[in-house]
Amino acid sequence: MDDKRTGTRDRLLRAGEGLFRTQGYSGTGLKELAQTARAPWGSMYHFFPRGKEQLGEEVVAYAGEIYLGAWQAAFRRGGDPGVAIERVFLAEARLLAGSDYRDGCPIASVTLDVASVSEPLRAACASGFEVWLDAIAQGLIAAGAPADDAKALAGFILSAMEGAIVLSRAAKDTAPLLQSARFVRQAIEREAAGWLPPS
Amino acid sequence: MDDKRTGTRDRLLRAGEGLFRTQGYSGTGLKELAQTARAPWGSMYHFFPRGKEQLGEEVVAYAGEIYLGAWQAAFRRGGDPGVAIERVFLAEARLLAGSDYRDGCPIASVTLDVASVSEPLRAACASGFEVWLDAIAQGLIAAGAPADDAKALAGFILSAMEGAIVLSRAAKDTAPLLQSARFVRQAIEREAAGWLPPS
Repeated sequence: MDDKRTGTRDRLLRAGEGLFRTQGYSGTGLKELAQTARAPWGSMYHFFPRGKEQLGEEVVAYAGEIYLGAWQAAFRRGGDPGVAIERVFLAEARLLAGSDYRDGCPIASVTLDVASVSEPLRAACASGFEVWLDAIAQGLIAAGAPADDAKALAGFILSAMEGAIVLSRAAKDTAPLLQSARFVRQAIEREAAGWLPPS
Repeated sequence: MDDKRTGTRDRLLRAGEGLFRTQGYSGTGLKELAQTARAPWGSMYHFFPRGKEQLGEEVVAYAGEIYLGAWQAAFRRGGDPGVAIERVFLAEARLLAGSDYRDGCPIASVTLDVASVSEPLRAACASGFEVWLDAIAQGLIAAGAPADDAKALAGFILSAMEGAIVLSRAAKDTAPLLQSARFVRQAIEREAAGWLPPS
């Protein structure tokens, strides 16, 4: 694929990611998406011959990969895993407030719109979340957590993060993210007290 | 307002509530909604002259009132507040699994679709969540929590619940709700250990 085409495809994915965050999957029309991406209309069906559903699947996978880096980076800075996770919540609070509460989670938005309507899109959302859950669990395991404990904590941590984004967007207030950050950090610290020191 | 008209309006709200849970606000057309409610098309603009946005606001308020009862009932059964909240998570897990993961939270769905697009709908979602946050905080205060602690815990509890519903719907698995239930209960129990016994 030549550079120009790759560039157009990437712009479509980025535009979809941005629009789904802000206004969901169902509220985003393909024409608006092509215009936002400055992409010719024909390119939409060139790159996504199965149409909006395929675009949605690939946007969700793209979003999964982008934010994977944020979870991994939090743990790479080392130190207490509760503090590492708290940093991600605080960074998300700054990101949300800085975007006037527009930049939510694209995978959550797609899930609530179409998880019960499109099985391929539901599966794409499950896989996107799974990428993040694995990154969180791996970070906890590296900090000494047994695998089962890491998996359960990861489900709880990502649940609290996703819900706090929803409540913060509704209230236009970072309080739910900051409140959740504190209790999630404490939960991780209490669990971590029972782990062996990482080798 | 006579009974027949009240009945139609109520059916429209209930149909909206059900459809927004499953497929979001943007994915729900007014014709589909009127058909689901077995309501004549003209009744839509009779009861909601400002159209879909007004209907959305009233559906969100209606949903807020319905689920208020679930939070209050959990605390009315008395006992440990951590166990009371855990019961709500476990009941939600049964409800979700029993509906093949269709019956999500209508207020979360509306928030992610239009919080950044319609200020009246965002404010309605904020108010709906606030009704639940208040009920949770009041339950915790009745169990002995200081008001500040109750408010912060309520934000965390509802965040974890809303996010766990999103993740459970994506995965078609109750694990995120069950994982969150456990850590949320433990967080409440740890806080409650520092409260004075309720009078």
